[in-house]
Amino acid sequence: MKSQIQSIGELHLNGTINSYAQIFFSQDRWYAVILLTVSMLDYRLGLGGLTAVVLTNLMAHLLGFSKEKIRTGLYGFNAVFIGISMVYKFHVNPALFVLFFFSVILGFMLTIWFETLLSKYKVPILTLPFVFTLFVVDLSFKTFTHIQPILPFDRFTIVLAEQMKVPWYNAVHFFDNTEIPQMLYFYLKTMASIFFTDSILVGVIVVIALLFHSRIKSTVAFLGFFFAFVTSKMMGVDIQQLTQNLAGVNYIFWGMAIGSFFIIPNAYSYLLVVGLTPVLFLFYTGIENLILNMGLSSYTLSFSLLSILLLFILRQRSLNRFFVFPYIQYYNPEKTVYKNVNYMQRFGQETLFKMQLPFLDKWTVSQGYDGAITHLGAWGKALDFVIMDEEGSTCFGRCAQKEDFYCYNKPVLAPADGYVYTISNIAGDNEINQVDTRKNWGNTIIINHLNGLYTQISHLKKDSFKVRTGDFVTKGTVVAACGNSGRSPEPHLHFQVQLTPEIGAATHPYPIGYFFEKAK
Amino acid sequence: MKSQIQSIGELHLNGTINSYAQIFFSQDRWYAVILLTVSMLDYRLGLGGLTAVVLTNLMAHLLGFSKEKIRTGLYGFNAVFIGISMVYKFHVNPALFVLFFFSVILGFMLTIWFETLLSKYKVPILTLPFVFTLFVVDLSFKTFTHIQPILPFDRFTIVLAEQMKVPWYNAVHFFDNTEIPQMLYFYLKTMASIFFTDSILVGVIVVIALLFHSRIKSTVAFLGFFFAFVTSKMMGVDIQQLTQNLAGVNYIFWGMAIGSFFIIPNAYSYLLVVGLTPVLFLFYTGIENLILNMGLSSYTLSFSLLSILLLFILRQRSLNRFFVFPYIQYYNPEKTVYKNVNYMQRFGQETLFKMQLPFLDKWTVSQGYDGAITHLGAWGKALDFVIMDEEGSTCFGRCAQKEDFYCYNKPVLAPADGYVYTISNIAGDNEINQVDTRKNWGNTIIINHLNGLYTQISHLKKDSFKVRTGDFVTKGTVVAACGNSGRSPEPHLHFQVQLTPEIGAATHPYPIGYFFEKAK
Amino acid sequence: MKSQIQSIGELHLNGTINSYAQIFFSQDRWYAVILLTVSMLDYRLGLGGLTAVVLTNLMAHLLGFSKEKIRTGLYGFNAVFIGISMVYKFHVNPALFVLFFFSVILGFMLTIWFETLLSKYKVPILTLPFVFTLFVVDLSFKTFTHIQPILPFDRFTIVLAEQMKVPWYNAVHFFDNTEIPQMLYFYLKTMASIFFTDSILVGVIVVIALLFHSRIKSTVAFLGFFFAFVTSKMMGVDIQQLTQNLAGVNYIFWGMAIGSFFIIPNAYSYLLVVGLTPVLFLFYTGIENLILNMGLSSYTLSFSLLSILLLFILRQRSLNRFFVFPYIQYYNPEKTVYKNVNYMQRFGQETLFKMQLPFLDKWTVSQGYDGAITHLGAWGKALDFVIMDEEGSTCFGRCAQKEDFYCYNKPVLAPADGYVYTISNIAGDNEINQVDTRKNWGNTIIINHLNGLYTQISHLKKDSFKVRTGDFVTKGTVVAACGNSGRSPEPHLHFQVQLTPEIGAATHPYPIGYFFEKAK
Repeated sequence: MKSQIQSIGELHLNGTINSYAQIFFSQDRWYAVILLTVSMLDYRLGLGGLTAVVLTNLMAHLLGFSKEKIRTGLYGFNAVFIGISMVYKFHVNPALFVLFFFSVILGFMLTIWFETLLSKYKVPILTLPFVFTLFVVDLSFKTFTHIQPILPFDRFTIVLAEQMKVPWYNAVHFFDNTEIPQMLYFYLKTMASIFFTDSILVGVIVVIALLFHSRIKSTVAFLGFFFAFVTSKMMGVDIQQLTQNLAGVNYIFWGMAIGSFFIIPNAYSYLLVVGLTPVLFLFYTGIENLILNMGLSSYTLSFSLLSILLLFILRQRSLNRFFVFPYIQYYNPEKTVYKNVNYMQRFGQETLFKMQLPFLDKWTVSQGYDGAITHLGAWGKALDFVIMDEEGSTCFGRCAQKEDFYCYNKPVLAPADGYVYTISNIAGDNEINQVDTRKNWGNTIIINHLNGLYTQISHLKKDSFKVRTGDFVTKGTVVAACGNSGRSPEPHLHFQVQLTPEIGAATHPYPIGYFFEKAK
Repeated sequence: MKSQIQSIGELHLNGTINSYAQIFFSQDRWYAVILLTVSMLDYRLGLGGLTAVVLTNLMAHLLGFSKEKIRTGLYGFNAVFIGISMVYKFHVNPALFVLFFFSVILGFMLTIWFETLLSKYKVPILTLPFVFTLFVVDLSFKTFTHIQPILPFDRFTIVLAEQMKVPWYNAVHFFDNTEIPQMLYFYLKTMASIFFTDSILVGVIVVIALLFHSRIKSTVAFLGFFFAFVTSKMMGVDIQQLTQNLAGVNYIFWGMAIGSFFIIPNAYSYLLVVGLTPVLFLFYTGIENLILNMGLSSYTLSFSLLSILLLFILRQRSLNRFFVFPYIQYYNPEKTVYKNVNYMQRFGQETLFKMQLPFLDKWTVSQGYDGAITHLGAWGKALDFVIMDEEGSTCFGRCAQKEDFYCYNKPVLAPADGYVYTISNIAGDNEINQVDTRKNWGNTIIINHLNGLYTQISHLKKDSFKVRTGDFVTKGTVVAACGNSGRSPEPHLHFQVQLTPEIGAATHPYPIGYFFEKAK
Repeated sequence: MKSQIQSIGELHLNGTINSYAQIFFSQDRWYAVILLTVSMLDYRLGLGGLTAVVLTNLMAHLLGFSKEKIRTGLYGFNAVFIGISMVYKFHVNPALFVLFFFSVILGFMLTIWFETLLSKYKVPILTLPFVFTLFVVDLSFKTFTHIQPILPFDRFTIVLAEQMKVPWYNAVHFFDNTEIPQMLYFYLKTMASIFFTDSILVGVIVVIALLFHSRIKSTVAFLGFFFAFVTSKMMGVDIQQLTQNLAGVNYIFWGMAIGSFFIIPNAYSYLLVVGLTPVLFLFYTGIENLILNMGLSSYTLSFSLLSILLLFILRQRSLNRFFVFPYIQYYNPEKTVYKNVNYMQRFGQETLFKMQLPFLDKWTVSQGYDGAITHLGAWGKALDFVIMDEEGSTCFGRCAQKEDFYCYNKPVLAPADGYVYTISNIAGDNEINQVDTRKNWGNTIIINHLNGLYTQISHLKKDSFKVRTGDFVTKGTVVAACGNSGRSPEPHLHFQVQLTPEIGAATHPYPIGYFFEKAK
């Protein structure tokens, strides 16, 4: 068992790394480390970003928000942008520390708020918290006389002088004056501008690393940028603008989000990126001009808004034609495509009966198919479930009583509609590490799903049944509570699908893994 | 059977025409044709509007959105305004084609988005998509150097010269210098400004046609305008402003929407228009001044917002006193009033037991009350239901098997709360065009609604029953599936209300038509 | 029985008084009278506020909105600010009367709208309606040439001359030039600015009265102000600004709302006020600068927005750690703390079984525990419920028939999940003032809650049972209707908790008062 400090350390290490990976809709550790390193090439900016991420994740942890979301970097990735841009915009002084700290808090509050609000509509928050936090900062700093913005002139004198002090300065800016085609030049510059730098080398590293990470993402990122470039030319807009204030980054994120992440990549998703990039361009220009007078920049607001708008609309369709939402997010378009094609080949022709897991929240499989302990031979296609904590333990305290086990007395749900065929309420709970082999299955429920399938759930708590034999139960109905009866040394659930209604029937190798939904 | 091309053509013809009718909250074909014609008097603007409508409806069709909404012009009527105003504002050149096309797409996206969002609160979207699309265009075009706005000076030279080339120019502007009372003059001008023209003749045509279409709408439209006029005078505001940028149109739409369309016209709805017009005036002025600095105009934003706000508030009341929402929208205030008065006279005193239709979505009555086939004599007050497609066919493919029929195996719902009295699960499905006269009613369910009423639903699918005799079912519970059993040559549902529980009892002439709700 | 006019008069008297009390999150009558009096010291402003409140409450009453909310001042307290500020900003003339009247209507519409929208998320509307109404007024008045704003110069000549005419002017401004510490000076000024006056005396009165009203509120109000003061100094912002346009009022309201009202006061709620005041400061400055260009002031917008944002976020937590929401709002932090501590001491260790009241809406206890009529001895822990109107009567008209009684035939709900153990459907309804002592309990239902508790509900309507013996009912299921059977001289419900299932068992002294929830 790992110590708690180790486990907290790991959580925050993962959370920090993944906050960088999330910028490119990824969970790839190595790619994230490259991005973090690249952000450190201008170490002041890099430290700003890192500090903001760490602060945000600590706050989320302390206030008891979802560890899963901390770990995957969902809370932290907006903080990267907030942190970097604060240091990019202002001279470092004591007042900036105060402003920085409270801006990060505001960003965190907005993250939670947007997340709760938008998750009801099943759309992502993208960079909205970053953009609105920066709006507040951009609007208020003029009033704070102790805050000193870095003026354009300062940037080319004081800041540059400061940057040139680092030994690797010349290496980083080595390529800046190389002759390269205009389009490529602007693409690299735009990629670099994600980290608020104008180094061509940074752009090159990010682009090459992205190619290694995912060819599909590289394609759609470039596709978005390319059509923004073309639209600029068509409408007579200065190309230079794409590299400033994250303007061009909108199109790169847009391409990845719509072309490969929130929609399973296919010809239609590519077409969507191409066809709507001019709309994004129009949208961006409108928003930018709206807030220009207030001395604001819209950063990645237009990408975020239009993506949310589009995903919201697509979710309203009754038929998921052309644009398919990934069922499980693999954070990797190639894998998403592979899994989806594989899924369609295996199950595309048939309509399979969908079940849900027979419990709420997240449980862990403690003994899988053909498990070594009891899932043997004709009884092999069964699953045992327990609840585990972060350290992989199924219990707390002394683990001496059934009440010390997380899953004990937790509700058990009907995996699908059906009639209750059998309820067996015969056995008391065992002492921990004792088993009752005479009443092997303990208290059990069998549900007849009326399509030739029966499900059996065993080791339930005595007298916990909420339904009676003959009742029609709908999917998700609470039928009983998890117990420790029968051949069960510690509280767990035994779950199996079978073709006949008797308790302990041979298991049926039903491909449930593909059809389980997480209970809401 | 009509060919598919014909049916698509008809859909889009209706969709286009009704998009114009919707401007005046109507579905009157002839009135719509007059409006379309009037918009064509300045043919460039007219073509702009028409193109935008056709494009929008095609897009909605292609992406699989509701045909019903395409047909009634709900998607298209914002496009009329978008199309006309784009051509009104800018010189036509290749860049404008691009801008026009993508603005129409943006308008469509906003239409879907607002519709989904606001329909949850049961309030309409009105002209919000048009207004927000124009905001984006108005804000962004200055950045697009290839787009040339029509400056005021241009309008009075280049554009006017262009307009004067059409042979009917003098006819259209014949009345412009006639002496008419100030109030009437501004009313006609404002009506004309809906189509972005200043021709008095256009105003006259629209006003007269509206009078023929509906006296009530004419009254409330004028009422809204009149009190805006009075408020202008009282607060010392220049009247001229009402004819520009759809300013005065706000009050005309407001009068029609609140006084006659979303609320059943009565003395209170008129009072509401009168009493709140100054509030709209205040609201309009505030919004207009807010966005003036950004070089924007608010068009019909204030009418849309205040109407939505008001309808939302009125929907929150527990008691529908004074202001009554029409149960069915007839798109014609006279008919709405007539139906409502009629309804109150027939049923106002009693409380009738409300049922819902025993299925989801939209089905068609294939044999009505006292139908010629089997609904005879004491069994006359029954209804047969099937699902029909656009061409009026009840099946697809070769129509040789029961599975080819749209309604086959569709869920059947309990029309109201009650106990399941009888389930008769005796007959297999017939071959198509065969009937089983021995088991006349086929598989049947009878529900006892506990108030002396029973409902019978017949010809159900064998073994499809989801409930058992004695179960208490709530309104909308799925009880079985549609089948083809008994005297049924093709899958359909037989539905009747009766006073006794036996299968095949005499029907009861219950006024269900008035009390059926569409299942959600 | 009070006359109806009296009762309406009382409603509006209470509604008016409480609208003032609500400003300080209170329901304290004497404190409210002091605030009203203080607002009248500049009688023109005071009358403006009072008129707006009375108008708003009358409108709410006439349109049939919640009397409870009228009485507690929830509709009116925004009107206080609207009324006072309108008179503060403009010279009084006929056009102002029009503007005033319709602004109050707009404010009322926004109150209803925000209330409906935000109550879904269980967050308060605070001063949003006032702020948005003022935005509309501030934006539009320039267009109204008949409206004359009071310019700064006017204020120091014409208005001051007018104010000085009142005999108590010198008394009110007696302290204005007294030497007091800077922080206290600004605190008093800010408190006075709530009523748009700069009199130190007003500040002193409000602060002292607040001290008498609640020490906790006084503390958190000052805490909010103090840390805003400190942040101002740190960021280099002019302190003078806190006393203008309700700027500093934001922090006072913020302190009271977060530190003592919406969250039960404890060390953490204080820390929250302290820790987030700089965020509010940042937020305020951002919003203020955003709308400065439009000539607007943000008043108390930032306090309202950030409080709503924060409360929304805190409500999303799965665990109510640190910050606890009060179960019942006592409008008095001392009482809230006392009740909460008391509650934790009594029930904090155990998990009690939560029931809900067995009816919808609001009923009144007509005979409580150990009631003198029939709740005697071992049967003492029972409750009788009826519905009463505003005058305390349980019936209308001649009160001669059971149908004249408000509660008759109203639905009766299961107070918690359980099996229906007994249904006794034996007795018809009595004539009014007759009792049926042979069938003492009348028609009765007993529900077995499976945890050793049974509930009995008696005097139900014959044949009104919606469930059958043996049915499993969930909390809130309609089980029957209220009747007048058994020992019941007029329709009412008898409700008791018992440990055994027989009808008329001895009652169990279950602390249901603490665990009843109001049915939604």
